[in-house]
Amino acid sequence: MSTVPPLLLALDLAGTFAFGLNGAFTAVRATRLDVVGVVGLGMITALGGGVVRDVLIGDVPPATFVDWPYFALAAAGGMLAFGFSRFLHRLEGPITVLDAIGLSTFAVIGASKALAYGLGIGPSLLLGVVTGVGGGTMRDILIGRIPSVLRSDLYAIPALVAAAITVAAVELDLYSLPAALTAVAACFTIRMLGVRLELNAPRPPWPPDPEDLD
Amino acid sequence: MSTVPPLLLALDLAGTFAFGLNGAFTAVRATRLDVVGVVGLGMITALGGGVVRDVLIGDVPPATFVDWPYFALAAAGGMLAFGFSRFLHRLEGPITVLDAIGLSTFAVIGASKALAYGLGIGPSLLLGVVTGVGGGTMRDILIGRIPSVLRSDLYAIPALVAAAITVAAVELDLYSLPAALTAVAACFTIRMLGVRLELNAPRPPWPPDPEDLD
Amino acid sequence: MSTVPPLLLALDLAGTFAFGLNGAFTAVRATRLDVVGVVGLGMITALGGGVVRDVLIGDVPPATFVDWPYFALAAAGGMLAFGFSRFLHRLEGPITVLDAIGLSTFAVIGASKALAYGLGIGPSLLLGVVTGVGGGTMRDILIGRIPSVLRSDLYAIPALVAAAITVAAVELDLYSLPAALTAVAACFTIRMLGVRLELNAPRPPWPPDPEDLD
Repeated sequence: MSTVPPLLLALDLAGTFAFGLNGAFTAVRATRLDVVGVVGLGMITALGGGVVRDVLIGDVPPATFVDWPYFALAAAGGMLAFGFSRFLHRLEGPITVLDAIGLSTFAVIGASKALAYGLGIGPSLLLGVVTGVGGGTMRDILIGRIPSVLRSDLYAIPALVAAAITVAAVELDLYSLPAALTAVAACFTIRMLGVRLELNAPRPPWPPDPEDLD
Repeated sequence: MSTVPPLLLALDLAGTFAFGLNGAFTAVRATRLDVVGVVGLGMITALGGGVVRDVLIGDVPPATFVDWPYFALAAAGGMLAFGFSRFLHRLEGPITVLDAIGLSTFAVIGASKALAYGLGIGPSLLLGVVTGVGGGTMRDILIGRIPSVLRSDLYAIPALVAAAITVAAVELDLYSLPAALTAVAACFTIRMLGVRLELNAPRPPWPPDPEDLD
Repeated sequence: MSTVPPLLLALDLAGTFAFGLNGAFTAVRATRLDVVGVVGLGMITALGGGVVRDVLIGDVPPATFVDWPYFALAAAGGMLAFGFSRFLHRLEGPITVLDAIGLSTFAVIGASKALAYGLGIGPSLLLGVVTGVGGGTMRDILIGRIPSVLRSDLYAIPALVAAAITVAAVELDLYSLPAALTAVAACFTIRMLGVRLELNAPRPPWPPDPEDLD
């Protein structure tokens, strides 16, 4: 935790809380759950991507298990979603913004941590993306949905852009707070544009979309 | 294995066998499987929670891969379920009791092991629960069901109680065989009461249960 | 990578590419995905089994994250499946053969690596099978299918045969390239016979197949 500048740390913590809240809220709307399911899925959404990254680079116990604020914020997000799920839809705008901040920060920190642990460019890009999208993917599997990151939306691609800017900056010896914030801003902008304009990642040329056949 | 007192070890081994048997039996009733599926899902149910805990605390290869009795009992449970699935429903009572013993022992041993590896209170509670419910959760994912631990029943909550008693005892320097057995007994009692009285974990206040709308 | 003889290495790399191509192709035919889903699921199919094995034996970062050719071939297979999914069904024969080569080589290398990291016979057999079938299992979970390896086909059983020959050879101090190729050939033969003759792994005696009730 000590190596992350305070601003990035604040974004990371805000993102963790947002992922916990949004992850639990998404779960509670998708299927019938009890308190274990709602809080558990919020925590998995918030912590899952970073835990997978840390297991794969060999940093165990995972950072979020050692730094209690992450753990506490993830649990708090899940518990708030349990208690106030009825009112959360009114906050969909701010939650989407916070979620995009989380995605961006997670991708940047994930990619730079993978590089710091000696991984190459390809795996570091992958682990940046996994840090951002891994938790939500686990939640979707657990509630029986095909993860939306595999099907539609611009979600993994902005994370990949953030990871690529991060990796390029590290490789060029230019990685610093401004570079990290540039990567965060790029991911955040693409993600929010995607939400606003309802953009999707490209589909394979085959099989054709069912709608196109009509 | 050497640090666990013989009585707790016996409960742990009985629980591993029961999880293998019950996990495979649940799978075979839920969907059409072959021998690989039945035995594989029995072993995953029996060993999965402890394996995830060991990977997350950094004790690899996982303890159940090193101590062959665990591995053998998990496989034996799966194979018995394969051969005798027709008759297992007559043993539902004893299997439920054995399964509750497994849940209780796994939660206590999981939480105390996490503490012994230097994890904090929150993560140790979580890993106690994960040790107890992780294997069954993986089985449910693999057979395409939303894990019941996220939806209903009192299953994770008694495990959390056992983990909490364990963590409190360790923190107060009172952890010993009587403390561990108290935690096991508390979890076992709550779990069996839950089964008998058909208790469920609390649901979120929103969305309303479909039945309540009628 | 240095300890694997060149012929086995070539088979392993060919298998990685085939798993990436075939995994992505299977995914694209089963459900609607975007580029992230197709390439991601191809890479998960190709690398997933070995990554799980390496995490469980404590060799992190996983070998395929360190040796870039594996990573690159897995990604290339996924990308080819994205671009040419329309034409891949014409290549089903050669892809099935390549996939069987991958399954066989993965099982042999997986079991021998587990033994080399000090695991016992049972866990080494299991990790040989997991190396072969783990990636496809993860893909099936992610696209919402009950993994076919749990239900039908001869897929895990030939991998188990290859792992068993490997483990026997190592235990008898006879492990060498000819022994490895014998294990690969045995698995490959059983797998291809299974495909040709549409053999399935044995089903449990109960519950009866729905068809048998008519």
